[in-house]
Order: sequence, then structure tokens, then C-alpha cells
Amino acid sequence: MYFHKQELQFKSTPDKPDAVYARKLQEVLGGQYGEISVAMQYAFQGWNMHLPGKYRDLVFGIGAEEFGHVEMLATMIAQLLEKAPLGITEDAVQDDPTVAAVVGGMDVQHAIVAGAGARPVDSNGNPWQGSFITASGNLYADFIANANAEMQGRVQVARLYHMTDDAGVRDLLAFLLARDTMHQNQWLRAVEELKADGLESLPVPSNFPQKKEHTEVSYQYLNFSDGQQAKDGGWASGPSVDGKGEHSYHEGPTTSAPMPPPTRPDARYYGTTDLPNTVEKIAGTVQDKLHRE
Amino acid sequence: MYFHKQELQFKSTPDKPDAVYARKLQEVLGGQYGEISVAMQYAFQGWNMHLPGKYRDLVFGIGAEEFGHVEMLATMIAQLLEKAPLGITEDAVQDDPTVAAVVGGMDVQHAIVAGAGARPVDSNGNPWQGSFITASGNLYADFIANANAEMQGRVQVARLYHMTDDAGVRDLLAFLLARDTMHQNQWLRAVEELKADGLESLPVPSNFPQKKEHTEVSYQYLNFSDGQQAKDGGWASGPSVDGKGEHSYHEGPTTSAPMPPPTRPDARYYGTTDLPNTVEKIAGTVQDKLHRE
Amino acid sequence: MYFHKQELQFKSTPDKPDAVYARKLQEVLGGQYGEISVAMQYAFQGWNMHLPGKYRDLVFGIGAEEFGHVEMLATMIAQLLEKAPLGITEDAVQDDPTVAAVVGGMDVQHAIVAGAGARPVDSNGNPWQGSFITASGNLYADFIANANAEMQGRVQVARLYHMTDDAGVRDLLAFLLARDTMHQNQWLRAVEELKADGLESLPVPSNFPQKKEHTEVSYQYLNFSDGQQAKDGGWASGPSVDGKGEHSYHEGPTTSAPMPPPTRPDARYYGTTDLPNTVEKIAGTVQDKLHRE
Amino acid sequence: MYFHKQELQFKSTPDKPDAVYARKLQEVLGGQYGEISVAMQYAFQGWNMHLPGKYRDLVFGIGAEEFGHVEMLATMIAQLLEKAPLGITEDAVQDDPTVAAVVGGMDVQHAIVAGAGARPVDSNGNPWQGSFITASGNLYADFIANANAEMQGRVQVARLYHMTDDAGVRDLLAFLLARDTMHQNQWLRAVEELKADGLESLPVPSNFPQKKEHTEVSYQYLNFSDGQQAKDGGWASGPSVDGKGEHSYHEGPTTSAPMPPPTRPDARYYGTTDLPNTVEKIAGTVQDKLHRE
Amino acid sequence: MYFHKQELQFKSTPDKPDAVYARKLQEVLGGQYGEISVAMQYAFQGWNMHLPGKYRDLVFGIGAEEFGHVEMLATMIAQLLEKAPLGITEDAVQDDPTVAAVVGGMDVQHAIVAGAGARPVDSNGNPWQGSFITASGNLYADFIANANAEMQGRVQVARLYHMTDDAGVRDLLAFLLARDTMHQNQWLRAVEELKADGLESLPVPSNFPQKKEHTEVSYQYLNFSDGQQAKDGGWASGPSVDGKGEHSYHEGPTTSAPMPPPTRPDARYYGTTDLPNTVEKIAGTVQDKLHRE
Amino acid sequence: MYFHKQELQFKSTPDKPDAVYARKLQEVLGGQYGEISVAMQYAFQGWNMHLPGKYRDLVFGIGAEEFGHVEMLATMIAQLLEKAPLGITEDAVQDDPTVAAVVGGMDVQHAIVAGAGARPVDSNGNPWQGSFITASGNLYADFIANANAEMQGRVQVARLYHMTDDAGVRDLLAFLLARDTMHQNQWLRAVEELKADGLESLPVPSNFPQKKEHTEVSYQYLNFSDGQQAKDGGWASGPSVDGKGEHSYHEGPTTSAPMPPPTRPDARYYGTTDLPNTVEKIAGTVQDKLHRE
Repeated sequence: MYFHKQELQFKSTPDKPDAVYARKLQEVLGGQYGEISVAMQYAFQGWNMHLPGKYRDLVFGIGAEEFGHVEMLATMIAQLLEKAPLGITEDAVQDDPTVAAVVGGMDVQHAIVAGAGARPVDSNGNPWQGSFITASGNLYADFIANANAEMQGRVQVARLYHMTDDAGVRDLLAFLLARDTMHQNQWLRAVEELKADGLESLPVPSNFPQKKEHTEVSYQYLNFSDGQQAKDGGWASGPSVDGKGEHSYHEGPTTSAPMPPPTRPDARYYGTTDLPNTVEKIAGTVQDKLHRE
Repeated sequence: MYFHKQELQFKSTPDKPDAVYARKLQEVLGGQYGEISVAMQYAFQGWNMHLPGKYRDLVFGIGAEEFGHVEMLATMIAQLLEKAPLGITEDAVQDDPTVAAVVGGMDVQHAIVAGAGARPVDSNGNPWQGSFITASGNLYADFIANANAEMQGRVQVARLYHMTDDAGVRDLLAFLLARDTMHQNQWLRAVEELKADGLESLPVPSNFPQKKEHTEVSYQYLNFSDGQQAKDGGWASGPSVDGKGEHSYHEGPTTSAPMPPPTRPDARYYGTTDLPNTVEKIAGTVQDKLHRE
Repeated sequence: MYFHKQELQFKSTPDKPDAVYARKLQEVLGGQYGEISVAMQYAFQGWNMHLPGKYRDLVFGIGAEEFGHVEMLATMIAQLLEKAPLGITEDAVQDDPTVAAVVGGMDVQHAIVAGAGARPVDSNGNPWQGSFITASGNLYADFIANANAEMQGRVQVARLYHMTDDAGVRDLLAFLLARDTMHQNQWLRAVEELKADGLESLPVPSNFPQKKEHTEVSYQYLNFSDGQQAKDGGWASGPSVDGKGEHSYHEGPTTSAPMPPPTRPDARYYGTTDLPNTVEKIAGTVQDKLHRE
Repeated sequence: MYFHKQELQFKSTPDKPDAVYARKLQEVLGGQYGEISVAMQYAFQGWNMHLPGKYRDLVFGIGAEEFGHVEMLATMIAQLLEKAPLGITEDAVQDDPTVAAVVGGMDVQHAIVAGAGARPVDSNGNPWQGSFITASGNLYADFIANANAEMQGRVQVARLYHMTDDAGVRDLLAFLLARDTMHQNQWLRAVEELKADGLESLPVPSNFPQKKEHTEVSYQYLNFSDGQQAKDGGWASGPSVDGKGEHSYHEGPTTSAPMPPPTRPDARYYGTTDLPNTVEKIAGTVQDKLHRE
Repeated sequence: MYFHKQELQFKSTPDKPDAVYARKLQEVLGGQYGEISVAMQYAFQGWNMHLPGKYRDLVFGIGAEEFGHVEMLATMIAQLLEKAPLGITEDAVQDDPTVAAVVGGMDVQHAIVAGAGARPVDSNGNPWQGSFITASGNLYADFIANANAEMQGRVQVARLYHMTDDAGVRDLLAFLLARDTMHQNQWLRAVEELKADGLESLPVPSNFPQKKEHTEVSYQYLNFSDGQQAKDGGWASGPSVDGKGEHSYHEGPTTSAPMPPPTRPDARYYGTTDLPNTVEKIAGTVQDKLHRE
Repeated sequence: MYFHKQELQFKSTPDKPDAVYARKLQEVLGGQYGEISVAMQYAFQGWNMHLPGKYRDLVFGIGAEEFGHVEMLATMIAQLLEKAPLGITEDAVQDDPTVAAVVGGMDVQHAIVAGAGARPVDSNGNPWQGSFITASGNLYADFIANANAEMQGRVQVARLYHMTDDAGVRDLLAFLLARDTMHQNQWLRAVEELKADGLESLPVPSNFPQKKEHTEVSYQYLNFSDGQQAKDGGWASGPSVDGKGEHSYHEGPTTSAPMPPPTRPDARYYGTTDLPNTVEKIAGTVQDKLHRE
């Protein structure tokens, strides 16, 4: 269960309102890699986890922190919107292009739908959606997904840092950047411990008997483009990261098979076929079948 | 540019049709971590990349391979659907519960919309969407995203392996499992080389001046749940993975701030406020403003 | 069945084109609470209704009116777009920041996709979708949903009223505001009559035998945040609105249960577990099972 | 900020696994009116609220409770999935139609994507999305939206109650039904107090000067269908619920306007027009303009 | 404006309920090419049209008919659902696999969300969405879009015809098939008249000065796959359909250009670049810029 | 399988960056009728096709070309974004309204998410989705869908041509316009050959026995609006395009049926009904049933 406290983890107040920036900040609230995504991702990973102990405590432990980050951003956005103009009536474009630019650059649903409030959407107004999150039950895969989310998130926050010179906003972003630093380190450490604890290793999932896969292509680099320099990478020769193979480099595929012949489903699907006199014959078939019905 | 060859990288023919399994296989064709996702993800990473050379050749080199995987799965699905029943008319539920189960378990749009053909959707019929992919321009973050995609993908293929005993289908899955093994190794190696080449390091993005973040919380584990065992992890004490900090463990936040007061946007947003005699006063304000207009 | 008449219910012509406002007006055409939503909502409620008579006549009677409102807004939007600029070529940003602001603020799909026409989308260009509507078959719940839709709609129209000073547009909005007034009253009256007619009452659905629910918590206010003032509300003490209970106030939950232990699904799902020597053991299990296959 | 406690508000354990029911239960977890929706809706209403005090404490107070409901349902679903079959391989349809039916009726993504875990989707596998929630800043409208959500939710839980005879599941549903009873009462009481506190009244938004709307149609029932019985409702005669008008009944519209003439946007939008010799003339116009460029 | 009449265009009553078929029928109600799509498509084409007269009367004339088709299908679906089972409680899978198959094959939201009613979704439960429709303002393009919609729709109805032997359902489908026949003919005739009236011709849009396009490739068939038989088609040699060119056949592209060098956006976007000593240099740049701020 | 070559089919470099135009160009990359749509549409048509030979070679032959068009547009967009401003910090709105307009008009996710790179979205930032494509297995219907896609696409490119005066961009658009000309001709020719080859004819699907449809309404124009001029079209009198009927004109429907009575599903769906003393009776029924359980 969750308990709410009417405090924030860090001060979240802008020096001045900025409706255009409010829209941009929505990306790290409700975007693919926003705070709603990590909060929900860690929560579902906890609920679906198949073992108790430090890993489950970990996802629960920081999952609730992330819901607090959602709150900090939503609170900030609402304040950035506090002086959001209603539009061109009294603040006419022709009189003041600055206002016009604000109206052009802000999220109009902030005004029309939310009455100058935050929304569960990204910076283009696309609603947050459940398909943004990952919780497969395999912790190696999921912790790598988490590391990715914290990296993409920190990249976005770093970009947003340069899109404002508001000291209050930057203060909050500096806090979020630090927490993303922590969380990147944390998930990569958790992957290392999964390996050290003998729970998972590469390739993921490590329990699938690798001899069942077509091992002859398990470490081949197959080049399907015409650039030659991929040959220089450690993926094209030398030992593999999982320590189980040796890479080799190949221009194009090392295996091939003819494309199977076209399928011929039931005539009553009304797909086009090339049987001679198709129309008559298929119609006959159909009518035969229809007759039976 | 892309060139198509009417061959497959590997034999992709089932021993017998299985319309229910066709639906399941859609997940790794058109799902969040299906082959369309990785094909498109690597393509966009190539087009957006800011440097030539081995990394760009790498994403182009395997991006085209993945489009070929899309084709192998689509071809397989079409064949699995070749005997898809039309429904209950002649294959009545009451006569044959097996057929009933097939009808219940298959993707009905395979029949009604595609005429026994593959579709760009996941195993629940949700359309593939552009928000499944990641291409940020930051290669460390993106290659971790790629490693995650190949891990989630291999986990799903491994599960699908046990959902059929069709030797032809398993043959194809064994091939895809092997390629996922390759690609997991490859992206993790690429991350190592990015570090070795001095291009990126942790925390990502590594070029953001870390002193600008609130470093006092950059390596703190803050426990927002009541499980105690997260304290035992390498994320709660000892050196951080990025080599730049030392972890510490804390129950709850180490910082806090009061929640800012509620916002008071323009009265013409018609949000509810608690000013005394609100209705009259705000109405007055509104009318004043309206009067001016 | 439906019949169309090439007339509008009210004059719907702007004094002058305004492509930015056209975008904003899309919200009440194709947004979550736009006219398409109420038109479709009332139609589906009619088709799904389980009783003839005044309630069904009511939803059919105003459902068709709402399709006419869709038309009035689409017509208005097309006219607002009549002089939509194509872009920066001849109307260069550097020469005229007003035009630049228009280009920045308008819906670019209005121009590129619809050729200066209306679209079934909201003010951020998100397509209208079927999940915006509600038609459960339970009329009390659905009429409250309808009242909500008319309230949210009227709030949005009121905001839009202040975002333009075009007398023609305001004239149309003044008409829509009046109809929303009617419809708010109407749905709340319909709820009252459902109660008076003995068809439904609180709590909804009223036919579910209330003794089957855990009645000890049916009227408890449980405070999961740390604000104290919710205690002052009529939901924290005194008789309940449904007349069937007496409210009480509690800090946090009055019941609790331990979280159940983690689940242990089939090993072939390849989730991570903490069995000692997991990799070997599970691999053994898997291979046993694979052996059998 | 939010804190997590590894306890549930109520026991959430099924008597036995049931993968088909797990799918159905997703509706009240991740559907339009599921627990994610109300948890997020109340949270955003709190963050966007323009006044402190009992109403803000209220939305925060029960918002956190709803996140706990999400957790209870996710936990239940994971347990219902604990014995989810992988599919037809060993549990062949022809041998056991019961298993076949389970495979047909369960959410295949529960197995393939989540490894027998819960997901943020509805019972058809549609991802939860931000557009399911409402937080307009106008509390009357939003509390009615909340009442609707609790009504739709309780209707759905009541239906789900009859779709299982598992005592453990029913125990949880009985608890949720009781909380929905509380929350329906609570939101309707909150509406009454908003009125009593002089903050909002009908029609919503109450601060918009009603004389600005076209009051002649503010209380007219306009019948756009041919059913006659809507005339018998309290919306067709007598005083209105808001106490500000008197209803009247009319067959069809009481106002009408001719449809405005078709629009004629810039020729370079390449829409079709009926000017004589259009092709030549427009081409001429276009070329004139092109010439200028 | 629209008027509703409580009659159907054709009898729409099944001989017996069939909840599985109800789900299938949703495809032609709320799918990509369902009746909502054509109803909305023709309506938006009418509202966006730039000329009065026979074409506008045409889209309005049949647009309203299509809303009536939506109603016929929704009515049919509600009746097919009239005996929809609630689930496995009393109709246990183990006792009656037929019921199990029904539960597995039906749309569970029909039961849980709509209480045995129709919904604005397709046969997989994906909500209808605005992006299913087309209304560009160019009538040639749009009428071809309409012809396509009527063709896809008739193909789907024909398939559905064979998925039931219910005479009542087939009676309705036979009616819809006939109307689709009419509408296919109608839109193709309308295209012919657009040409005859001198309003539009090939290539669409016909008013764009064709000399502005790179006419050397306007009629070349470029083969990007390795199949040879496309050479035999009328698109590879001989006069073009638009009468303005002569086709020629080419293996692969007839033009090519080197891929431009990678882009180098602002360092503060934190994309990865290959400048020597990148980290230090870019960090320097960033700090320079930060210093200025 | 697919092979990539690091060349473009045509030069794709702008004369100068233009972040606002980059956003507009996304429409023809990732919109409903963008290049991703046609590339995927032709690919799926190939994989689902039921006959070998010229038609399959055709869809494969140009399908790969379209993936190359995706690449050309993505490359162009990345270059247009090369100087994308980060925002208002140093390029303050008040100092330079031109920059403000750029910030307002560009896709902010281009900056925040993609780091000045292209994305698989349309010009409003809506992700590309699988439901944009059509591949039914019926080639007549699908080739008409293809013709439509090429027409809508060419209309959009023509509009975009006028939204820039950048010679480099226009050069690329001139190339795409020419290819769209080719592809329009090609698909319409393919339809003619399908007819000539006796594979498909009108009405589509041609194999469905037309006598099974309600032929009395197969060629009737039914006018559901009040415009009279549709009577003048070739769809209202004279022979039909398919050569199988004679059109006639009718005001309104020529058939009608009473609306069936409301449905009465199981009481445990908790829909509202009008049985006398409903609450008591249904509650009784429910309790009876509950008792049995």
C-alpha cells in the first residue's frame, strides 16, 4: 500500500511562469521515458517478481520515490502555467509577438482541458500509455530496461536544462539529474549482483538450453549493409561478452532458404489467386460449400 | 537504399498450420519488442547518428537483417494461417470443441481483415506503433536500449518455443534465438567500445558537467518502501559502477521541501478557488474583463 | 436511421479566418469531451438500452442533436481555416512575426492533410477514439457520465470563449453554452427520475445485494495522506448521501493483510527466481520437460 | 511524496489459479475505469487544484488508497496466473478441451510478455492511457467525473463478482465494492459541500455570466428523434434542476440557419473546386504564384 | 443537422444469440473499414468540400445512410449478446466445453464494460479512431479512398457471411453487401464524372504543374527486388494510364546520390560524436556556453 | 531478405536548416499516408499474397524502394534539424521573435527525445501505427488502397512543396512527386490487368455469388440528405460501372423495418430495466442465483 505526504523531496518552484517550458517539461513527466513510466515500471516489476529479498525491496524502494518525482514535475508544471495567457483576444498577436509565440508554443490542452494544470501526456500531447513500460519477470532483462530508462531520462533532462535559464527550474532538474545518476549506477550494479548470485547470466534468458538454438550463427556478425567498418568492432572478431563464443565477420547471410510458395487459404476468404479461370472455379467451390450450408 | 531478395535467411515453414499459434507469434513480429521494433529502431539510429564509421555501419549492417526477420515471421504466420477455419458455421462448436477452441484462441482479424495473412500488430491485436522505438542520438543510452530489446525479445522467443511442438516453427525460433544471442553480445560490446574509444561513459550523458547536478544525492540509496533487504545490495554501500562515487543507504528521503501553495490562474479558466464570496468576486472580475473586450 | 438536412441549428460563421483558433476549437469537436464524444455516447446508450420509453427516447432525441453540433463546429473550423497560410515561403518569418506565430500555433495537419479542413482530432491532433465514450447499460452510472461530459464540455467552451474576440465565433459558443446548460440540467433530472421511478438508486448498481460487500468499510473515510482537513467534510462523519450508512474518519487503513509470497510460475517462463543453484536446477527442470517433448 | 509499505489493505489471494479470470480482472486494474485511472485522476486533481484545505486533502487522501488498490489487483492477477499453461504443446487441444478453452480465453501477453505477471492494460489488452483521466481544475465537474468513475467501476466489479466462484477472489471484490460505495457517497457529498460553501453551482462552470449564453435555448428540450415519450420527463417541462429556468418541449430545433457556402482556400492546397475551366485557371494561378517565388 | 427515426433500413435481428459472432461483427461496426469509418469519412468530406452541387449532395446523401448502418450493426450486436454468459461460475468449463469456447471467443468487454451491449471498437477490442478516415479536400483522391473503403468493407462482410449460418444475421449481411455494391459503383462513377467535368485528372493532384516534378522518373518502373515478372506488367512498358507518359523497366534505381555526412547538432543535445577527445572538448564547449548563461 | 546500401536514390540535402519545416516533413515520413505506410503496406501485401508472379514481384519490387524513401526523408529531416535551437535561454523570445516562432512551430520531441533527429511520427507527433496499412489478400481492393495512398501522398507532397522555398528540399519533393505519379499509374494499371487476367472484377470481391446479396438495392441511390443535385450524377441513373446493373434514384430508404425491442440480458449485468418493482424483483433473481452458487 501507498501513503502520501504533503511534502516534496526537493523544492519545485520556478522563478517565473513559462507556459512554453511547461509543455516541454511534460516529456519527462508523461513521455515514453518520463517519471510515470519508471514509477509504473518498477511497481509492476515488484508485483510480478518471483523472489523475495533485496531485488524486490529494491524495486519497491525506489518505485515509490518515482511517484514522488511525478508529483514534483506536476507541481512545477502547474506553477509554470500560472500566468498562461488565454489567447489572442486581449493579448493580440499583432501587438505583441512575444505573446503570440507563447500561444504558439504552449500545449493548448494545458489551457482548454486542464485549466492551467499538468496532464499525463508527453510534450506533444500524446497520452502516457501502458505500453511504455517493461516488466517481463526476467530480472536481467528488466534491469537493463531500467538502466536504459534512466539513461534516456537523464539525456532528456540534460537537454531540458539548456532550454531554460530559470534558476528554480534548473534547481529541480539538477536534483533529478543526480537521482538519475544514482539509478543508472544502481541498475547496472543490480545486474552485476544477479550474475554474482548465480541467478541470471548472458545470453538472457540464461536458463534456456543454449544447445537448442542454432549455435552456428550465435556469434556471427552478418553485414546486411555495404559499410565496411563494422568489421573493426569487437563484435566482429574475438571473444564474445558472454564468454561463450568467438565472433566472426561475414558479408551478408551465411544461411539462406527459398521463400516458401504463396499460401492458398479457403476460397471463402476471397483472396486473389491465379488458378486458371479462377472466378468461375472459386465461385463454383464457394457455391458448393454454400449449397451444403 | 534497400534492396529486396526473394529468399529468406532461414527456412520458415511450419509442419502444419496452427491459427492459434499464428496469433502468438505476432508478438515477436509486431509487439513492443518484436522484429519491426528492432528493424525500425536500428534504422532511425543510423539516420540520426552524428558520426560515421563502425558504429553507423553497425546499426545499418544489422538493421536490414531485422527487416528480413520481419519477413520470415510474416511468412511463417501466413502459413500457420493457411487452414484457418472461418468459424462456427460448418465447424460447429457443439460438434467439435477443438475447432471451437481454435476459433476462440485465434486472432479474428487474421481472418476478417487479412484473409488469413500476417498483420503489423502484437499478439493482442494492438497495432505496432512508432513509440515502441528509441533513437536519442546518444549512443550509450541507445545501445543499452538495443541490448534490452534483444533480451526482452529472446525471453519472448524462448517462451514461444515451449508453446508449440511443431518442428518447423521451432527450427525458425532456434535460429532467432541464436541471432538474439549474437545481438545481445554485440550491443554490450559496442557499449564497451564506446567507453574504450572515449566517446561516452557513465553516467549518461557523460558530457553534462556533473558538478551541475545536486551531487549530494547522486549516490544515495533512498528507501521509500519498508523492505530492509535492499540495504544488502551493492547499490547501498561501496563504490558506484561509474567509479565516481560511494553509495550510502537512507531510510526515506534525505531532503524535503514543503509543497508549494496552490496556483491561482486567470479567473477565466473557471477553476474552483476558495476566495471568500468567490462566485460573486470572480464573476465580477470576469465581467470587468469581458467589459473591456 | 438518420436523415441529414443541409441546415445548421445556429449560425456558424466567423467574422474572419483564424487558423490558430481553428486548432483550439478542435478540442470541443474531437477531444475527450468534444461533440463527437457525446453524439456517439448517447447513440450507443440508446442502442444498448434495456428498456423502451422516455429514457430511450431521451438519448435518441438529443443524440442526433449532438451530431448536428459536430457539423456546426466542423463547418466553423473550415471557415476559420479559409485563409490558412501555407507557410514560410512567401510569408517569411523574418518579415512578419505575426504570420510566423500563426504558422507556429496552427495545426499543421489542417494544412497538409486536410487542405484547410476540419479533422476528427483534438486540439493537439490526437485522433478521437472510441474509448472516450461510456455506455454501460446501467442508466444511473451512464447519466452521471453524461452530466460529467456536459460539464467538462461547458467548462472548455467557456474557456474558448475568452480565447477569441470574433463575434461570429462567440455567437456560436454562446449557443453551445446554452445547450450545455440544458443538457446538464437534463441528465441530473433524469437521474432523479430514475430514483423516483424505482429503477436505480445509490450505491450504483443498486441491485447488487449490499450485504455481499464488506460493509464494515462501506462508509469509512480512510486518510492515506497527511492532510487533516478532509476530516471536516461531510464524507468523514454524519449520514451518507445514499441514506444507508454513517461516515467515520480514520487515519490510514482500518484493515490490512500481509503481501502474499511471490509467485513461482512454470520454469519455462524464464522469470528469475531465488532457488539455490537456480540456473542449474531450472535448466534441469526445463531439460526434463524438453526431453519429454 | 509517496511511501510504500509491503502490506495490502485487504487479503488478495485466490483459492486457485485461473488464467482466464486473470485477464478479466485486468479491466478493473488497467481499463478506462480501472484503479490506475482513479489513482491517477485523483493525483492530478490534487496537483492542479487551486485551493488548499479539505478538498485538496480529500483527493490526496484517497488518491494514495487507490494506488494500493492497483497493487491489490496486480498481486491477485499474478497469483491467478501462477499455473498459466504455456500452450498447446503438452496440453494439447485434442486431449483436453478445457485447457484449450483456457488458452483461448486468457490474455496471451500475460504469458509471452509478462511471464505470468500483471500488466497495465484492460481486459482486451489495450494499454492504459492518460486520456482516461479527467482533471479540469473545476471541482464540481471533476467530482461528478469522480462519482461517474466510482459508479462505472462498481458496476464492473459487480459483474466480475458473478464471473467467478473463487471465494478468495470474491472476498477481494467484496472489499472493493464496499470502497466504491464509500467513494460514490463521498464525491456526491463533496459536490453538495461545494454548493453549500458557495464555491460552485449549476450550470458548471457557475462563474461564467449566464446572460452571455443564448438563454432562449438554455432550458428547451429539442427532440431530434421521433420517439414521443421524452416529453414525459422532468427535462421537458417544469423547473430546471439548477433552479434558474423552466423547461419546454419542442419537436426538432427552434432555431436554424442556412449552411454557409463552401470554403475556397488557397489554390495551392489542391482541393477540388467547381470554377469553370478549373484545371486551367487554377494551374494558371498556381503558376503565377510559383513564378513569383 | 441530423434527425433520427426509430426505424431501421432493414431487419436486423438474429435467429439466436451468439456472443462470439457479436465480437466478430464489431469489425464492420468499429474497425478500420467499419461503418463508423465511412459515416465519419463522408461527413468530414462534406464539411470540408470546396464546391456545392452534386458531389457535396452525394457525400451528405449517403453519409447519413451510413450512420444508419452503424445503428443496424449495433442493434444486431446487442441482440447477439442477449444471452451472453457471465462466465465460468455456473457454466463451468469442465462441464461444458462449448460454453468455455464461447467465453474464450467472445469480447470480454462486451460483458464487463458494456453489460452485453455494442461498443465503438473493432473485433479485437481496439477503439475506433479518427485516423481511420480520409478527407483531404481533393475529391479524386478522396473518392478513390471511398471506393477502397467500400471494397475492403464488402470483402470483410463476405468473409463474415461464411462465419455464421444464422439466417437473420445473413439477411442483414446480404443487405449490406448490396449497399456496398452500390457504393463501389457510385464512387468509381463519381471519379469518372470528376474527369468528365474537367475538375480533376491523373496524376492527382492534377493542378500541380507536372513539369515541376522530376519527369525523367515519372514513368519508370524501378525494380528493387529480384523477381523478374513485374517486367510483364503494363506498368513496365507501354503508355501510362494517365495518358501522359510511356513506361520503362529498370533493374534498381536509375538515379543515386551519396548519403550526406552525419549531422552535428549543438553539443548540448548530448548526442555522441567522434571528434578526437570528444568528452573533454564537448564538455569544454558546453561549459563555455554554460558560463555565458 | 533486405540489403541496405549507403546511398540514396536521390540527393536529399537542404540548402539550410529549418526546424519548423522538419516537423512538417514528418507527415510524409510517418503519417497516415507517409512513406512508412506504403513501405509496410506493400511488404505485407507481398507476404500475404496467394499467387506468385508479376503481382507479387510488383509489390516486392517497389516495396523496397519505399523503405529507401523513408530513409531519404529521415536523412533530410535530420539535416533540417541540424541547427535546431535548444530554446529560449539564450535565444530569448523577447529579443528575437523569429527564434520564438521557430521554437513554437517545431516538434519539441525532435529536440528533447531525438536530439535533433527524425522520428517515426506524423507532423503532430502522433506515432506511426500498424493500423495505417491495408493488406486484405484481395488484390483489387488492395491495389485501389495503394492508388489511394499514392494519391493522398502526392497531394500532401504538393502542399509541402509550397511551404518552403529551399531549393534542396524542393528538389527532393520534385523527385517524390514524380515517383508518386509513377505509382498512381502503376496501381491503376495493375487493377486493369487483374480484370484482364480474369482474376478480379467489380463488385469486389467478385467471387461472392452476387445473387446472395439483396440485389433489389444493389444499384439504388438512396438520398438521406435534402440536397437534390445528387440526382444529376451517373450514380443515380444509367448503367453501373460494373456493367451489372442500372441505377435508380430514391428519396430516402426503399426499405425499412421496425427497431427491434430492447434486449434483456442476464440480471447480473446490472443494466437498468423497466420491470415493475425492478429493484426488488431483480435483487430477488440475483439472490436466487447467488444462492445457488
